[in-house]
Amino acid sequence: MNVTGIIVEYNPFHNGHALHLKAAREATDADVVIAVMSGSFVQRGEPAIVPKWERAQMAIDAGVDIVIELPVLAATQQAAVFAEKAVELLAAMRVNHLFFGSEHGDSEAFVQLSEQMLKQHDEFAHTLQHLLQRKETSYPVAFATALRSVFSNTSIDVTKPNNILGFHYALAIAKNQFAIQLHTMPRAHAGFHDQAITHPSIASATAIRRLLLEQGLEAASHYLPATTKAILAAYHGPFISWADYYPFLQYRLLTAEPAELAANRLVSEGIENRFQAAAQKSSDFTAFLKSVQTKRYSNARIQRTALHILLHHLKSEHYQPYLRILGMSAAGRKYMTTWKKEIPLPIVSTVSKAPAELLELDLRATAVYTLPVALQDYRQADFTRPPYLT
Amino acid sequence: MNVTGIIVEYNPFHNGHALHLKAAREATDADVVIAVMSGSFVQRGEPAIVPKWERAQMAIDAGVDIVIELPVLAATQQAAVFAEKAVELLAAMRVNHLFFGSEHGDSEAFVQLSEQMLKQHDEFAHTLQHLLQRKETSYPVAFATALRSVFSNTSIDVTKPNNILGFHYALAIAKNQFAIQLHTMPRAHAGFHDQAITHPSIASATAIRRLLLEQGLEAASHYLPATTKAILAAYHGPFISWADYYPFLQYRLLTAEPAELAANRLVSEGIENRFQAAAQKSSDFTAFLKSVQTKRYSNARIQRTALHILLHHLKSEHYQPYLRILGMSAAGRKYMTTWKKEIPLPIVSTVSKAPAELLELDLRATAVYTLPVALQDYRQADFTRPPYLT
Repeated sequence: MNVTGIIVEYNPFHNGHALHLKAAREATDADVVIAVMSGSFVQRGEPAIVPKWERAQMAIDAGVDIVIELPVLAATQQAAVFAEKAVELLAAMRVNHLFFGSEHGDSEAFVQLSEQMLKQHDEFAHTLQHLLQRKETSYPVAFATALRSVFSNTSIDVTKPNNILGFHYALAIAKNQFAIQLHTMPRAHAGFHDQAITHPSIASATAIRRLLLEQGLEAASHYLPATTKAILAAYHGPFISWADYYPFLQYRLLTAEPAELAANRLVSEGIENRFQAAAQKSSDFTAFLKSVQTKRYSNARIQRTALHILLHHLKSEHYQPYLRILGMSAAGRKYMTTWKKEIPLPIVSTVSKAPAELLELDLRATAVYTLPVALQDYRQADFTRPPYLT
Repeated sequence: MNVTGIIVEYNPFHNGHALHLKAAREATDADVVIAVMSGSFVQRGEPAIVPKWERAQMAIDAGVDIVIELPVLAATQQAAVFAEKAVELLAAMRVNHLFFGSEHGDSEAFVQLSEQMLKQHDEFAHTLQHLLQRKETSYPVAFATALRSVFSNTSIDVTKPNNILGFHYALAIAKNQFAIQLHTMPRAHAGFHDQAITHPSIASATAIRRLLLEQGLEAASHYLPATTKAILAAYHGPFISWADYYPFLQYRLLTAEPAELAANRLVSEGIENRFQAAAQKSSDFTAFLKSVQTKRYSNARIQRTALHILLHHLKSEHYQPYLRILGMSAAGRKYMTTWKKEIPLPIVSTVSKAPAELLELDLRATAVYTLPVALQDYRQADFTRPPYLT
């Protein structure tokens, strides 16, 4: 039986995702496709443009069989952590294939690079440490530089965001010796974060979000499958961006003691002071980001730091894996019925029946995500909305 | 020289205040009238309906000579603290008269009661403690009961809010042996918090705020002097209430650890848990208040607790007195020029020249008060708006 895992954000599900999903199914001759998907907040440190329930529905209606929510503390971290935790959930779900899109396009090169990394990890760590100590570059740039320097024989361009994610998927599999076969295909047409749109029906999620936020659903509809269009047309809430949460971030920054902020994840080296000064003078999130920008921190890192502060993620709070089911097709349900006894992690399809401490951070994420008045119908949705079933 | 102090909130300045001010001037044959006024947040634990700058202008235009801001940590506390700190500022300003409105109306009775309290303080404290331990009543009710029980000969009805304030004014004077003569007059027509309006031109500030919030300036204009009307007509911001800050309170309650909330003033006996549960289910401040109500806490106490959480007032942060000048008439300026060298507290008329740590809590109060987008023009006003001078 071919059980294929994919790791997604579907923010929102678009035509490129539909191609990727079709390729995943074909390349692995999949009987079941399982997606691990970010919830209310995504890996770049941003709120998702629409709630996770709508995004899970988009996935199921487009052909995914099971959607599992990646817990917020994994979903909002750097590529290495995001990738490893997502792969661990897929392994728990007993997938035997992992399919991903990459700029490179050849899975063997990812497997090789990850095996080299396991062998030469100390040398790599030393090189990376050395680069970071110079304090001239951001972590992702230093990471890519160290990779290229230590593993100069690889054909993978590790400055490309999907190659980096793919490398971390491969590494998580190799490290844990998961029996998961890796598959990749070259990403077509639209770069990961491209703002420009050059293809008649494919655009990046970044470009599509911009269209939705600035011009509405109609403007983005060329780039969305009919299933997504129908779900967004029925969706009554607003399209969401950091702008909706900046007042809360600003409030927190203007009232907290610096030492309290330093208890939040990623807050270090005095960045809390920089953030507090920026909150004083910035009346919107764009101005805030501009004001805290430095060469040393990537934009994603700044956003993730702001998000950890917003969500009050404490350094003392730790990730706990579990499998929150957001949606299932008929094939997905059959798979779960057959295999659930063999799955080694807690499965949560009814939140009120799950141990409260396991879901604490994700419930807090929903509480914050639904603070905008226009989302108030979703405030109790973790408890009231069952998984989307077809 | 007769220098008369009054303690006010002017939230907003109305016809009743105009009568009170006239009476203060006449009863004391005042050369100068100095008002100590709450700033952005008032004693009942609420935001002021319009910014302190507008309210200071109302005071000066109506005939007050100097408006001093009562620092937020004094302004948002129970009557005893509010009254004592306000009297201390007036004493520093060298007033020799204090005028206040009361339900009772005879100043001698207040002086006598305060002197008795100084003599029998231990007995009173013991009786109060005993009542509070029963945990059946709120602090103000227990306080009034203990007063009536220990000082049964007083003619003052200490369940009335202005009598209680007057008693604390008298007590602060007696305790500190300030050379300040006490004057009171019976309050006319409208009770302190009366919702009902029964007089053609006098209504309580509570009733007037309700009119302003629900129906706008025109509906309230019968009860306001021309000076206030002109200032409110020129004011471009919104009328402000707790509703504007509830999302921020809710955000804080939904993200903070209970132990973090317990570091905020007035948070004790597990009320933080009650507040957090209420924030989960209450979509507006009225519902929230209703949900946390108990016999043991007065509404004002609940609001003040919520406000201390909103403003992140820590138990470890302490009140520091200083004299922030918000407005001066010509007579007020002359008084300051003549006497400023004799005034024993820091005088602040330009915030940027004052020691930052002295104003920290009040600057934070402005930062929070101006979080609603419609107030963003006021965000830097502590630094940019000079005292209002006539």
